[in-house]
Amino acid sequence: MAAKLGILAGSGELPLFLVDACRTSGRPVFVLGFQGAADPQRLGDAPHAIVRLGAAAEGLRILRENGVEELVMAGPVRRPSLASLMPDWRAAKFFARIGLRALGDDGLLSAIIKELELEGFRVVGIESILGGLLAPKGPLGRIEPDEQARADIARGLEVARALGALDVGQAAVVQQGIVLGVEAADGTDALIARAGSLRREGLGGVLVKIAKPGQERRADLPTIGVRTVEAAAKAGLRGIAVEAGAALVVDRAAVAAAADQAVLFLVGVEAP
Amino acid sequence: MAAKLGILAGSGELPLFLVDACRTSGRPVFVLGFQGAADPQRLGDAPHAIVRLGAAAEGLRILRENGVEELVMAGPVRRPSLASLMPDWRAAKFFARIGLRALGDDGLLSAIIKELELEGFRVVGIESILGGLLAPKGPLGRIEPDEQARADIARGLEVARALGALDVGQAAVVQQGIVLGVEAADGTDALIARAGSLRREGLGGVLVKIAKPGQERRADLPTIGVRTVEAAAKAGLRGIAVEAGAALVVDRAAVAAAADQAVLFLVGVEAP
Repeated sequence: MAAKLGILAGSGELPLFLVDACRTSGRPVFVLGFQGAADPQRLGDAPHAIVRLGAAAEGLRILRENGVEELVMAGPVRRPSLASLMPDWRAAKFFARIGLRALGDDGLLSAIIKELELEGFRVVGIESILGGLLAPKGPLGRIEPDEQARADIARGLEVARALGALDVGQAAVVQQGIVLGVEAADGTDALIARAGSLRREGLGGVLVKIAKPGQERRADLPTIGVRTVEAAAKAGLRGIAVEAGAALVVDRAAVAAAADQAVLFLVGVEAP
Repeated sequence: MAAKLGILAGSGELPLFLVDACRTSGRPVFVLGFQGAADPQRLGDAPHAIVRLGAAAEGLRILRENGVEELVMAGPVRRPSLASLMPDWRAAKFFARIGLRALGDDGLLSAIIKELELEGFRVVGIESILGGLLAPKGPLGRIEPDEQARADIARGLEVARALGALDVGQAAVVQQGIVLGVEAADGTDALIARAGSLRREGLGGVLVKIAKPGQERRADLPTIGVRTVEAAAKAGLRGIAVEAGAALVVDRAAVAAAADQAVLFLVGVEAP
C-alpha cells in the first residue's frame, strides 16, 4: 500500500478531489487544512485537522502523529502579513532564516517545500496523484478562439509572463488589445470580477492564466474549474486560455461542458 | 504674444491648472475636452468645446476654427474599444493605418501625437507650460520612508517597471513585500481602493508610480495630486513614491501638506 498522503489544504475543490482519488485507489489520506482557507465542509469525511497558518510546530506534530509520510499542497491560501501570521517558534525560526520580505508567493512556497523536506517529508506534485489534470494543447470544449481572441491571448501571455517572472501573479485579462487587469494578491476570481466592471463595448475579453517561469511545480500551479468558467461568462469574457502542460483543469469534462454551455472557449496554449 | 494653446482635456485637475497658467502669463487658450472624461464644470470660464473621442474630424476643425497652433494633452481619458469609439472618417483613417489592437496606451498616444503633428500642430509637454510640476528627488513632506517602506518601494519599482515596459500601467501597491495590486485599465484611483480592501495587518503598503520606460513625455505622464494622497491615506497606505523628474505633482505645496496631515510620506525616487 502506498504511504499515507497528507494534503496541505487551501481553498477550493482540489483538496476534496485528492481525497476522492486516494479513496478510489485505496490510499490512506489525512488532510491538514489552513484556517481561513480550507473549508471543513468541503473535505467530505476525510480525517482532518485545521491549524493556523502560523502554527508550524503544531502542524508538523499533527502530520507525524497521523503517520503522514508524503505531502501534497492543494488549493490557494491568502498570504498574510508577518504581523497577522503570528508565527509560533517553529515558523519564526523559518522566517528568521529565509526573510519574508524579498519573496514572492512562489519563492515563499518553494522555501516551505524545502523546509518540509528537511523535516523528513516527501513533497509531491498534484499531478503525480491525480493524473490527467494538466491542460492539453488545443480547445477543451467546442468553441475556438477567433482572430481577435488569438491576438488578445498573445497579449495576455506576454503580460502574464512578465508578471510571473517577477513572482507577482499568473493571470491577465485582455479585451481588444486593452489589458483590463492583471492578477496580484487579489487572485483570479477577483481579477475576473474586476475585468467585468471595466469591460468595453464589442467583442469581450480573454482570461489568460499560466504558470510562472521556473515555478515550483509542486506548489500553486494555475488552476481553473467550473467556477472559473461561470465567473468568466458572468464578466462578459469570450474565453479562457491556460498554459498547456502546466495549468490544472479540475474536472475537465464538467469544465468543458460549462464552457460550451456558456458559449465560451477554453484552450490550452503554449506560454512564450 | 505666444501662440494660442489648445488643451486636449481628459479628467482631473490638470486642464484647469493649465488654463490658469495661461491666464497668468496672458497666453490665449482654448480647451477641447473629451466627452465622458473632461468635466466642463472644472474648466472655469475658459473657451471650450466638448467632442466625442471618435469625432476626430470635428475636433480638428474646432481647433483650427479657434486658431489653435500648439497643443498639450492633459488628464487621463478612459480608453474605449474600437466599437464604442464610433470613429468618424478621420479617426477611421487613422486606425486603419496604425491598427488598434497591438498598441498599449502609450503606443496609441504616441501615434496620435504624430498624427496631430502631421496635421500641422505643434504638440508640447505639460512641463514646458507649467514649470515645477515634475517631482524632485527626495521627500516632499515631513515624513520619510523607513526600512520596510524602502524595501516595498524597491519591489514596487521593479514591478511597475516591468508593467510599464509592456505598456500596461504605471503603478503598483506593495505591502510588506506582498504585491497587493498593479495598475492596468482601471487606473490609479481604482488600484488604491483595491489595495485598501486587500490590505494585511501591520505596517501599511506603499504606492509606487513611475513613467513607462521610453514613454512619450508629451502624453499621460504619471500624475498625483491631493486626491491621490487622500485616497492613499483612506486605503491604509503609508506612503507614495513617484519617479523623480518624470511624475507630475499637481499643486506641490497642497500635496505635501495633505501628506503631512495624513502622516504619509511622499518621495521622489529614481526608477531602476
